[in-house]
Order: sequence, then structure tokens, then C-alpha cells
Amino acid sequence: MPRYRLTIEYDGGPYVGWQRQSNGPSVQAAIEAAILAVSGEEATVFGSGRTDAGVHAEGQVGHVDLSRDWDGERLRAAIQAHLKDQPVAILEASRVGDDFHCRFSATARHYLYRILNRRPPPALDLGRVWWVRAPLDHEAMHRAAQVLVGHHDFSTFRSTHCQAKSAMKTLDALDVSRIGPHVEIRASSRSFLHNQVRSMAGTLKLVGEGRWTARDVQRALDARNRTACGPVAPASGLYLVRIDYPPDIINR
Amino acid sequence: MPRYRLTIEYDGGPYVGWQRQSNGPSVQAAIEAAILAVSGEEATVFGSGRTDAGVHAEGQVGHVDLSRDWDGERLRAAIQAHLKDQPVAILEASRVGDDFHCRFSATARHYLYRILNRRPPPALDLGRVWWVRAPLDHEAMHRAAQVLVGHHDFSTFRSTHCQAKSAMKTLDALDVSRIGPHVEIRASSRSFLHNQVRSMAGTLKLVGEGRWTARDVQRALDARNRTACGPVAPASGLYLVRIDYPPDIINR
Repeated sequence: MPRYRLTIEYDGGPYVGWQRQSNGPSVQAAIEAAILAVSGEEATVFGSGRTDAGVHAEGQVGHVDLSRDWDGERLRAAIQAHLKDQPVAILEASRVGDDFHCRFSATARHYLYRILNRRPPPALDLGRVWWVRAPLDHEAMHRAAQVLVGHHDFSTFRSTHCQAKSAMKTLDALDVSRIGPHVEIRASSRSFLHNQVRSMAGTLKLVGEGRWTARDVQRALDARNRTACGPVAPASGLYLVRIDYPPDIINR
Repeated sequence: MPRYRLTIEYDGGPYVGWQRQSNGPSVQAAIEAAILAVSGEEATVFGSGRTDAGVHAEGQVGHVDLSRDWDGERLRAAIQAHLKDQPVAILEASRVGDDFHCRFSATARHYLYRILNRRPPPALDLGRVWWVRAPLDHEAMHRAAQVLVGHHDFSTFRSTHCQAKSAMKTLDALDVSRIGPHVEIRASSRSFLHNQVRSMAGTLKLVGEGRWTARDVQRALDARNRTACGPVAPASGLYLVRIDYPPDIINR
């Protein structure tokens, strides 16, 4: 059966997360329902990774096998038409080879964590940021973030629900910058543990407030223990920005 | 009575507009209700200008007279606390002189009009942009926009409901640029006619699509006639960004 890759943007606010669950609407179920309406097929849409309830995506990637040959743009438009007013946009659909797997073929994942750092609460950014009132020193946060870059045991920064076999991961980049009242944390890795970005963001916030130093972050990492972690930052500030794949898999 | 200036951010989506109206919730009424809860005073909050239903503000400015002396930051926080979960943020409150009037003292108003220019509809930007599918030539739009800059009779670009005595206005800047899939139109003037920015944005969209040229925009301006205008762009893409005041009024 022909395989199609989907690139997907969504507002995570109304959903229980990417993955189909019994307790509420999911992005995966919304897209699968649209595909059923389009093609009559009860197909499973795989995702590059689960995003939790309230987490947003600018570029989630999924794949689906359909029995029919579709022109990519026609398939994209047809699925979109059946998503109606849901905050889910199919940015791209294209035919890929059977060896493409949105999760296992990925070579890098890029996340953005957005903090609105000001005394007044968000109005235009409601549900899209973590609101932190205390002034954050984003330069101190960036310096402390470098402690986490590299190949480490990230046990401290993984959810107790994480199902990964190993906590060893290579964090390629963790950059903190400020744009006006927004503090942005950008994280890149081949793969992340469950809640890893939010755990790192919550820990770096302690540094920004001056309550922790880079040495405290080092100690937390070295502890390899969940209880050494700072608070987990809320889902509303997290965006799955982009997934990278090997060019030869994409362009075939 | 002491006068206070308020700087206000809001998501216009849930409101019938800035101004109090009988047909639904307004930003003005929400803030007045919060002030009543804070101070026990039924005060009127004046605005620098009305924004229509669905129009957003990053920096609307209002003023209000209260009988009590308030520290600005305490007043801001107290009003904010009573706005609860509404998408209205009081960014600043400060004591100003009796000669400050948020509407009549303004020396410039700055608006942003945002277009999402791509085939897929908005997901994260739902309600915050005008979705235009056809590719827009933003450079042609920018060139054509320069026809409108300067001192002109803007009768073509004013709503039939506009209550201004004269249609003569000086447009200080009208710049069009692109940031990825977003086309941004930035307009500055001492004051605007009702629907002027949305009328100009809708007209420039015709240029971006290649359906109109800069000469057509010139002809429309010269016609001084509402029927010569392009379509009025939807409210969801419009943001009142900033109001300028003379420094001596602000800093006293």
C-alpha cells in the first residue's frame, strides 16, 4: 500500500494530546476520522512522537498507508476539508517509500518552549505560553543550559511515566534567548524522554530567577534522580517545531 | 479627581469590540466592571479609539478618573485580578495629569494587519490572521501601498458608518513585508477613519494577487468613493499595536 507522510500544525489546547485516548479528543483521532471520511479507510496515522495534552505543534510529522494512489496536494486538501473548524492544519502530504517511518526514521527533533516573562498575564498569548512574573535572567539560563548539552543520563529530567528503555540521550542544543517579554528555549535532539523539555525548562526557570546556579543544574543532572528536578513547566508553552529526516528518505 | 492612564492588551475574538454595547461583552465594560469591583466606583474608561468586534490590541490606551490616590502598579494589579480569565491584560497603569486624554492627546496610532498566506488554513493562528490562499507578491503590495502614504482624501477607504467630519488624513507609513508564510502590513497615522486599515489591507491583497496594480490603487484613491474600494479585510487580522503621546504629557 502507498505510504504518505503528513506534516501537521495544531493548537494542543482542546486535545488530550496527539495520541488517541478514551478520555477525550486527540489530534490523531481527528485526522484518522478525516481520512475515513475522505477514503473510506480506517487507517492508523502514526506520529513521530506523542505530544501531551495542551502541547502544540508547528511541524508534527505522521505517516499513513492508504490503498489508493493519491496526488499529495489533493490528499492534503481532502483531509483538511474534513477537519472542518478544528485547530489542526495539514501543512503537507506526500508519497514516501515503505522504508519511511515518521518515528524511527527521524534524525532530529526540535522543540520550542515559550515563557511570557512579565507581570501582566497573557491575553493574546493565553494558552500559548508559560506565564512567569519574576524577571528572568535569560543569559544565566543559557549558560546553565550548556551543562545539559551532550551525551548524558537524563533520568532526572524524565517523567516517572516515561517508557524509554534507557535514559541515555544526546542533547544537541539547548539555547535560551529573549525577544521582548518572551523568553524562548530551543531544544534539539535525535529523541527526547517523556517530559524532558518541560523538565529542563522548569529547571532553567529556577536559574533565571536566581534560585539555582549552573552548578545546581549540574548536581541535578549528576543525581540521575527524578526528585532532583525542578518543577515541570506547563504544557501550554511547548511547541514541537520540526522533525528532521535523512534527505535520501525524503527525496526518493 | 486623579486621572490614570491604562495600557491594555486584548484578544478581540470574544468581544463585540472595545466599546460598551447592548449586544454583547465589550473590553470597555469588562475593565469598568473590574474597576467597580476594585474601587466601588462606576467610572467610565475612555479609549484612544474604538476597535471593532474581533480586532485585537497589543497596546490600546485608555484613561479613567478615580477619586482615590493609587500607586500605579497596585491599581494595575488590582484591576487585573478582577478580570479573572478574560483575555484582557492591563500592561500598565500610571497617574497622568488632567490634560492627558487618551484619544485627543494621541500623536500617532500604529496598526498591524496580519495575513497568513499559505494553502493550509491557520491552526495556531486561528482567529489571529486573515487566511489568504493565493500566493501574494508582498513587494508589489509594498510598492502600491506607497500610493496611499501622505495627505489624502481617504473617502474610498472609510466605512459608510464612519462618523469623522472629514476624510482628509495623513498616512505616515504603510509598509508590507513577509516573514515566512505571514504577510504583515504596518500602518501609522495620527488618526484613522473607521475601517481604514482593513479597507487598505483588502485593497492591497488585490495587488498581491496580481488582480490590481499600483495604478488601480491610485484610481481608487482618486475616486474618493467607497464603491471604488477593494474588499474590507476581516477583523481577525487587525492589531492596534501602539499609541504615541507627546513626551511632556507622559512624563509629567
